Amino acid sequence: MSASRVATELARHARRIGPILQELVPRDGDESAFLGGPAWYHLETGGKRIRSALCLLTAEALGGDSEKALHFAAAVELLHNMLLVHDDIEDGDTVRRNQPTVWKRFGLANAINIGDYLFARSLRAVILSPVPGEARARLVDLFLATYERTIAGQALDINSRCDERFTIEDYLRMVTLKTGHYLVLGMVGGAIIAGAPEATLECLRRLGESLGPAFQIRDDILDLTAGKGRGGVSGSDIREGKASILYAHALAHSSPAEAERLLKIMRKPREEKTDSDVAAVLGLYGRCGSIAFAQEMADRLILQAQRALDALPVEQQSLFRELLTYIAERKT
Amino acid sequence: MSASRVATELARHARRIGPILQELVPRDGDESAFLGGPAWYHLETGGKRIRSALCLLTAEALGGDSEKALHFAAAVELLHNMLLVHDDIEDGDTVRRNQPTVWKRFGLANAINIGDYLFARSLRAVILSPVPGEARARLVDLFLATYERTIAGQALDINSRCDERFTIEDYLRMVTLKTGHYLVLGMVGGAIIAGAPEATLECLRRLGESLGPAFQIRDDILDLTAGKGRGGVSGSDIREGKASILYAHALAHSSPAEAERLLKIMRKPREEKTDSDVAAVLGLYGRCGSIAFAQEMADRLILQAQRALDALPVEQQSLFRELLTYIAERKT
Repeated sequence: MSASRVATELARHARRIGPILQELVPRDGDESAFLGGPAWYHLETGGKRIRSALCLLTAEALGGDSEKALHFAAAVELLHNMLLVHDDIEDGDTVRRNQPTVWKRFGLANAINIGDYLFARSLRAVILSPVPGEARARLVDLFLATYERTIAGQALDINSRCDERFTIEDYLRMVTLKTGHYLVLGMVGGAIIAGAPEATLECLRRLGESLGPAFQIRDDILDLTAGKGRGGVSGSDIREGKASILYAHALAHSSPAEAERLLKIMRKPREEKTDSDVAAVLGLYGRCGSIAFAQEMADRLILQAQRALDALPVEQQSLFRELLTYIAERKT
Repeated sequence: MSASRVATELARHARRIGPILQELVPRDGDESAFLGGPAWYHLETGGKRIRSALCLLTAEALGGDSEKALHFAAAVELLHNMLLVHDDIEDGDTVRRNQPTVWKRFGLANAINIGDYLFARSLRAVILSPVPGEARARLVDLFLATYERTIAGQALDINSRCDERFTIEDYLRMVTLKTGHYLVLGMVGGAIIAGAPEATLECLRRLGESLGPAFQIRDDILDLTAGKGRGGVSGSDIREGKASILYAHALAHSSPAEAERLLKIMRKPREEKTDSDVAAVLGLYGRCGSIAFAQEMADRLILQAQRALDALPVEQQSLFRELLTYIAERKT
């Protein structure tokens, strides 16, 4: 399958998710009053449904009936959005995908509750999967285990901010927990639904453990320039004092005086950070070679992800290699 | 079983929950760093574990092996605590059980994440229940459905504050969603584990639909005087502008001028509300007969809960009647 064919296939599968999402999250109704509206305010902004599409494509590629994976695909999409809703509160982000975040638009109380609601609905979707009871139990277990790891990673993330002892190893541990299983959740679920052998599941899990961190590192780098749809602001991670790979690297590779200055800026409250503070940190990242280091690390992890695919049966390798290339080249 | 025997039995069962809670929520460890500590900060304050005890006692009373209900009993306890952690943020409450709330102590980001963590662990506990797959699937469904109703009720609660059209019917709908199923979750789960017939489950569910709202109404009344462990502050609901039954009743039974004054006070930001504002609302509640009305409504609901038990097999009635009396007479 060519790269453009992969893109077409993913887009085709992504379109299949709309109706089931509508069913799972009713826009309005007695039991979803004040929930459906805000949930869709958020859901409608994230149009690509790439995680759902990967789930359906994987189920199909491994010889399964992707109709049976629709619920799980929707679950992955809902989980993703739930995490964004809670993350935006936790990070104090006011803009996502160029519109006010849920908490900014509907208030803190509603935003927490809507995140809880989306998680409940995602779990409901998993339970509704039209597969035999044993497979369903495996899907629930996978889904929950992934969620638990993401929460553990998030706990490290929250509490590593401005930590002067934060190392690259800490960073990798944090992002592997936070993203390593989560990124391939749909693919692993799709493989379970297709009845794939354990070796294939293991291979997809290993793919995720390299690809997830690679993505997070690229996101860290991207934040220095593009602003991740946060209203064009660059350096959000610096403003938030986030423990990025750049921060971990610069901390270990700068002089004591520079490290102290870095810490002093990172520890300032967000609203007190000036543009020149951000520029100073960017300059330090450049001088320490942190950006180049991060880029190399991301490339190395992508290579590692490619190697993980060697263990797949030969007839499935080309599709997953194309998929990996496609995912790795996505800009967002 | 006498009332004091019920109390002794509940206390005995409550003590059985400690070890399994410790297992489910490790105090510290690689994957629970920054999670176990704050979770236990919260868990340790709520010592009675009444919900767990009701689960175990019900399983035993209905002829089941209560050892098999330990996981579900722990799940109910964790869910209860998760909801408190998120509720305290949503309500802006700074004190619970006479100590700083989790968000006040560990910050907003950690508190949201710890709530998510406790929910994940509660679900894990349900999944670990040592019962056949089909029963486990029923427990997961029950647990999730109850959580979903509670969230729907919470959404109404959040968005009904200071609403000038809020009626007693709205109130009853809100609290039935929020507490009607949640209060008896452990009992219904215990009954499923004991293999009780559908009629018994239905009877316990109906018990909850009366008892949950009765409890919430009593909580609303209690808030006017005792302060619910919120550092001795009374009238918290008035300060928070919460849509209590007293508010709904007074709104419908006061003159237009008085209703307007009530709304004006309720809509003031919490920090601007004075003690004399609170006293004025209390005075209005008294003049309108709102407190007496609420008390009567609670009594009526307790009677209704007693009637729900008529459908139980005769040999089980006396225990559940004793339980109901015990629960109904608890002060907190």
